[in-house]
Amino acid sequence: MTEESFRALASAINPPSDAAAEAARALHDRLTKPPGSLGDVETLGVQLSAIAGHCPPPVPEPVTIAVFAGDHGVVDAGVTPWPSEVTAQMVANFCSGGAAINVLARHVHADVVVVDVGVATPIPSESLTLVRRNVAKGTANLALGPAMSEEQASAALDVGVDVANEALRGGARLLITGDMGIGNTTPSAALIAAFTSSAPASVTGRGTGINDEMLETKTRVIEAALRRLTPNATPLAILAEVGGLEIAAMAGFIVAGAAAGVPVLVDGVISVAAALVATAFAPGVPAYLIAGHRSSEPGASVGLAHLGLKPLLDLGLRLGEGSGAALAVPLVQAAANILREMATFDSAGVSETDDAR
Amino acid sequence: MTEESFRALASAINPPSDAAAEAARALHDRLTKPPGSLGDVETLGVQLSAIAGHCPPPVPEPVTIAVFAGDHGVVDAGVTPWPSEVTAQMVANFCSGGAAINVLARHVHADVVVVDVGVATPIPSESLTLVRRNVAKGTANLALGPAMSEEQASAALDVGVDVANEALRGGARLLITGDMGIGNTTPSAALIAAFTSSAPASVTGRGTGINDEMLETKTRVIEAALRRLTPNATPLAILAEVGGLEIAAMAGFIVAGAAAGVPVLVDGVISVAAALVATAFAPGVPAYLIAGHRSSEPGASVGLAHLGLKPLLDLGLRLGEGSGAALAVPLVQAAANILREMATFDSAGVSETDDAR
Repeated sequence: MTEESFRALASAINPPSDAAAEAARALHDRLTKPPGSLGDVETLGVQLSAIAGHCPPPVPEPVTIAVFAGDHGVVDAGVTPWPSEVTAQMVANFCSGGAAINVLARHVHADVVVVDVGVATPIPSESLTLVRRNVAKGTANLALGPAMSEEQASAALDVGVDVANEALRGGARLLITGDMGIGNTTPSAALIAAFTSSAPASVTGRGTGINDEMLETKTRVIEAALRRLTPNATPLAILAEVGGLEIAAMAGFIVAGAAAGVPVLVDGVISVAAALVATAFAPGVPAYLIAGHRSSEPGASVGLAHLGLKPLLDLGLRLGEGSGAALAVPLVQAAANILREMATFDSAGVSETDDAR
Repeated sequence: MTEESFRALASAINPPSDAAAEAARALHDRLTKPPGSLGDVETLGVQLSAIAGHCPPPVPEPVTIAVFAGDHGVVDAGVTPWPSEVTAQMVANFCSGGAAINVLARHVHADVVVVDVGVATPIPSESLTLVRRNVAKGTANLALGPAMSEEQASAALDVGVDVANEALRGGARLLITGDMGIGNTTPSAALIAAFTSSAPASVTGRGTGINDEMLETKTRVIEAALRRLTPNATPLAILAEVGGLEIAAMAGFIVAGAAAGVPVLVDGVISVAAALVATAFAPGVPAYLIAGHRSSEPGASVGLAHLGLKPLLDLGLRLGEGSGAALAVPLVQAAANILREMATFDSAGVSETDDAR
């Protein structure tokens, strides 16, 4: 896909239906419960109706979780205690079904699609289900220069678009973003800082668990990398300079989902960074996003606020893979079921208050 | 059941297994994820292991949601805009499957048991599944005197014990507390104030939606009722003076679940009040409790803190019926699945950090 055709896709996102949202609000007030008493579950039902264009909305299923994997040259700068080889090892673990995301996906009857978009080392798996779309063997070290060329970033965006379209062709009606990439909280924090105009120190966290010294190094690396950006840098230029291959693919996946009119359930801080990239390309994206959870990583909260998203779960998760989003799937489906299956005051013969009448 | 045999049941609660909890913590650290990265899901897995007495724990299923229904004489004091008849109408709605709890229960494959323990008006349902254990046609108006006699409170506790034991005999391995009772946030706030030594104004909320004037009335009613309690009032005396029939039954249900060594997933503010009552009878109860969600009612947060419980969801729900707990069922089951199904670093051939080794 050329950069132009990606831009065309991004501009093809239609706003969700206000009429369907209004119909959902009106239906919620006729269901046998005090108005508003299902809180955020009602808000979610309104959003699902708006996205579907009718009320009640369909239950968002089948569910596809795409786990995009890539490596990061910035691990050479000492931002994580984990070796890059773990990315490839975990990809093999996803393919054999032993990772957290596999367990959680089975639990919610979701498919997991594993995509090598930028893994640096050989993947110890002969899995035929692994989607092999390696754009490069990891990014360059963003502490020293651009993480990617714009051509690489663009190619990675395309991988995400293709994976989304393939899932949609297979019938998926809820898309979930997942990630695997040792070191990827560093480019994520850099992207969040860039797209929300935040100070790096306010969005940089301990990832999977680093000490104070490593956190200091990580923050300084991000600050230095962001200073290389020109004031009028395009979204693609920012993505290439401080992003990651799997994050770019996730952004493309999100744009394609929104363009197809399908809700996209985003996971933690890496997914939030990808959602910010997607939104920079396509301002219509956030209306299609549902935030699965609030990662304990500080950049996640900053990014969610910028996107106007309130997360469904807040369980102190910091794993990635799509795990927090997978845990939220039953809540999303419940929101649709409420609108589809509950009785109304009239149909059930239940009295309303004078206020509600 | 005599009051003595209820006390015997309450004292029969065994502490969960420290050894199983320790085994779960150790297993979590060997699973292919950064240690602690599944946050509260790991804490929950440890608790389920401790309750089961082994690790990995069984998946907590089948699930039984017991919805206890009762009316409240205090509605005469003007604490809610809803008429008492709605309790009976909603019981009929539960029996025909049209209420929120029915929708959410079907979604998580849980059974719903509907129990009339204190409904005041005729129930417009011929359902054979309704458990008819009416102790009284609603409580007396607690604004004027005791809500119940101690004999009534004790009989209602017994109803809850019987319903729990019946569910357990049927195979249930996760019990959920639900409630229906117009006016029942008033006795709940009174019980929470009494058992947590809180000021009534700090635990009294707007329930299903009341205005400032009604909230002021509600708070004053609770303050006055609590002044009637003697300093050394027993749990049964407090329950009888300011409680409710369905709340008493829920407390008995919780005690029986804990005594049987089964986790009890509690819903919102009414369930929290019942959990405080249960804990006053049986201090071993909280180790068996899982808080499904944080109700928007202020007393819920005060009660949860007193019980040492961190809720799984915080979605602004204020419906009752067990709805917030039902929404949390997939999270509880996921916590067990993680321990049961994830690969370890060794088995998956994934490298650990130097820190973790």
